Order: sequence, then C-alpha cells, then structure tokens
Amino acid sequence: MSSETDETGAGKPPMRDALVAAAFRLFLERGYEQTTVDDIVALAGVGRRSFFRYFPSKEDVVFPDHERCLADMTAFLAGGSDDEPVRRVCDAARLVLRMYAENPTFSVQRYRLTRQVPGLRAYELSVVWRYERALAEYLRRRFAARREGTLQADVIAAAVVAAHNNALRSWLRSDGRGEAGTAVDHALAYVQSAFGGVPVPPVAEQPEDVVVVVARRGTPLWRVVQEIEATLGRG
Amino acid sequence: MSSETDETGAGKPPMRDALVAAAFRLFLERGYEQTTVDDIVALAGVGRRSFFRYFPSKEDVVFPDHERCLADMTAFLAGGSDDEPVRRVCDAARLVLRMYAENPTFSVQRYRLTRQVPGLRAYELSVVWRYERALAEYLRRRFAARREGTLQADVIAAAVVAAHNNALRSWLRSDGRGEAGTAVDHALAYVQSAFGGVPVPPVAEQPEDVVVVVARRGTPLWRVVQEIEATLGRG
Repeated sequence: MSSETDETGAGKPPMRDALVAAAFRLFLERGYEQTTVDDIVALAGVGRRSFFRYFPSKEDVVFPDHERCLADMTAFLAGGSDDEPVRRVCDAARLVLRMYAENPTFSVQRYRLTRQVPGLRAYELSVVWRYERALAEYLRRRFAARREGTLQADVIAAAVVAAHNNALRSWLRSDGRGEAGTAVDHALAYVQSAFGGVPVPPVAEQPEDVVVVVARRGTPLWRVVQEIEATLGRG
Repeated sequence: MSSETDETGAGKPPMRDALVAAAFRLFLERGYEQTTVDDIVALAGVGRRSFFRYFPSKEDVVFPDHERCLADMTAFLAGGSDDEPVRRVCDAARLVLRMYAENPTFSVQRYRLTRQVPGLRAYELSVVWRYERALAEYLRRRFAARREGTLQADVIAAAVVAAHNNALRSWLRSDGRGEAGTAVDHALAYVQSAFGGVPVPPVAEQPEDVVVVVARRGTPLWRVVQEIEATLGRG
C-alpha cells in the first residue's frame, strides 16, 4: 500500500513503512532493476531525502527489518549466560524466523525478488553472515574456556543458520503456508542433537531406569549413537 | 611479477598470471580502490581486452583460482558414490585448502586485502556460498532416501565450510606459517565426529573386544557419547 491508502484502517502508516510498501509495489509491477528511488518516492509522496534518511540504498529497502532483528538478537544473546549455549543460539535464530513469519505475504514476495536479482542475493548473503557472526561471537564467549572453543563456536553457529534457513526456505517456497515455527523447531532440534544441546527428558517416573549398550570396539560411533537413540526412544 | 620479469626462471608466465601479479603489485602499493583496470594492463603490458578475456571485473582478478577450484570440487564429488558421504565432503573441502596452501604469500596478501575492502568481502561470501552449495548438493543426492535428507545435507555442508574456514583463517592470520593441512584435518574431524563420519579404527588386533556402556535413562545423549568416545579412546 502507498501512504495514501491504508488497508488496515489503523491510521496512516509511518513514512518508512509507506516507502517499503511503495517500493515493493513497483518492484512487483516493473521489476527491481527498472524501479528507481525517484519512482519510489513519487509513489510514496515524499522527497528523496526522506528515502535516504531511512535507507542508505535501494537494496536496503528490500530488507527493512534486518537491522532491528540483528539488534534484537544481539540484545537477546547478551542476556543469556545461564542457558545451555547451543539452545540459546537456537532461540536467537527463532527471532529471525519470527520476523519473517510476522508478515508472510511480504516475506514470500521478497523471497521471489531476491532469487531473481543477483545483487539482492549478494546483499542477503551479507545479512546472513552478520547473523552467523552474532551467534558465533556469543558461542565463542561461552566456550572461552574450551581448547577448541572458537572452532566449535563457528561450526555450531553455521549449523544453526543452515538449519534455520533450510526450514525458512521450505516455508517461503510453500508461499508461507503452514506453520513456519514447527519446521524451524524441527530443524534446530537436529543441530541440538548433533552438538550436545539435547533437552534432557523428564526422568521423574523412572529415575533408576538404566540403558545398557554393548558394541564391538571399532563400531563407527554414529552407529553406536543410532543404537542408543533407538533404545532411548529418541530416534 | 609483471610479464617482463620472471623470477622463477621457468619461462614467461602466461598472460593471465601476469595480470594477477600486476594487479596485486598495484593493490599492495596503491590500494585496491585506487587501482584501475587500465593501471593493471599498463603494468602487465597488455591491452584492456586481454584483461576482460580472463576476468569479468576487477574483483575477479583478486580470486583468480576459485572457478578452477569449484570445477575441481564438482568433478571430485561427481566421482565419490562409494565413500562415506561426510568424509567425502570433508575431502572436497581440502581441495580449497590446497589451493590456498599452494601459494602462502599470495593467499596471505589476499586475505589482508579482502578484510580491508567491503566489496571484496561480499565477493568472497558469494564464493564461499558456491562451495557450500556444491557440498550440499552432493549430500542431498547421497541422502536422497532419508526423510530429513535436505536438512541434514544443508547443515553438514555449512558445518564443513565453517570448520574449514576457521582453520584456514587461523593459518592466514599467522601469515601462512605452520602446517595448514593439519589444522584443517583437525577442524574437519570435529564435524565428522558430530555427524557420523568418524573413521572406523582398525579392528584386526582385537576383533571381539566389546565395549559396554551403562547409562541412566534420561542422561543427555551428548554425555553418553562423550563417555563412549572416552571408552573407545577417541575423545
């Protein structure tokens, strides 16, 4: 919608939102490359300076919420020194998912646009990189006492981002139908199971229940784990 | 070196190498932004058309070997349907390391340059993304029968790339001193241990040697795995 129309009826949207709405209307009608900042400000009914007050470039209007989301993520991670670290970064990744899921139509439109325009793809990669670094920096702090702390932090952060994006892209490809949160939870659980952040199941009912696994020395570790998972009913 | 000098004494280097050498000499002397394609071709003693025959843009001359390395990786992955899949992608990642390690001085210079120029950072991210996609596509094919195949493929590919890059960057930050291969082997072993690609140790000497692990139901899986690793002497 432009600044002249407000389909929600909740009053005139702020100028920043109007610019995003005008931009996307034009991107969808004419294509991204064929739309200029002048076209956007004309449709939004504001001046060029207003545009550049909010967005350093035309690319930035395509991703209007990532800076806020990155700030939210950084704040969230700054507060979580008691949580299990892998779980904490998974929860941080869910903040990004929430941003996409808040506005499925917009998110799906942007996904299609980004796939068509190489420059936007590059921009998105740099944004994803910043999220990954935020997660990795948090884990590096939490793992500071580990000999392999920076390696583990970098690998786990990358795995969390890849799992999140795998689920997010599936949801975007399905045109934002279905429950994005469930898919992301499922994907992140895979990372947690691989890197030690598996939630401890309740043990109250059978506190002394013991599992015995017998394996020939030389059995690949993954096979032993598979066996234990099956035995514990987590497979 | 320029096309006029050949410090190896092995004959005049190909024009492509001369262009790369001239470009880096100027990038280091004047800075990347201050160097034009005209400057590069003048120093190399060739025309502009020769430059653009080899490199679509000034950015591409900074990463002259990635296309070849990506092609090598794709070819390598096309041939590995018998190997354990996680091990295969780790071996594919080692091809990238080898490219860097072949020419430590050049790799360290480029690393410093890339950290200074945001446009080169973005270019590098897109290259890293292409390696990651090559690994993920291979794993997706190998995991085609798994219900979670694409998720696992994406996560493992990202973990392999992050581990490789963690070790590679440590080596580059140390000015290319030390054995890059050992650090990368170590980093990739961490990914293999997390995702089931642990090499099977030789079992010939004690074929019937059996390991028994007893764990209370409800013990976090990672603790059980830690215990097994310690018992098997892989910790």
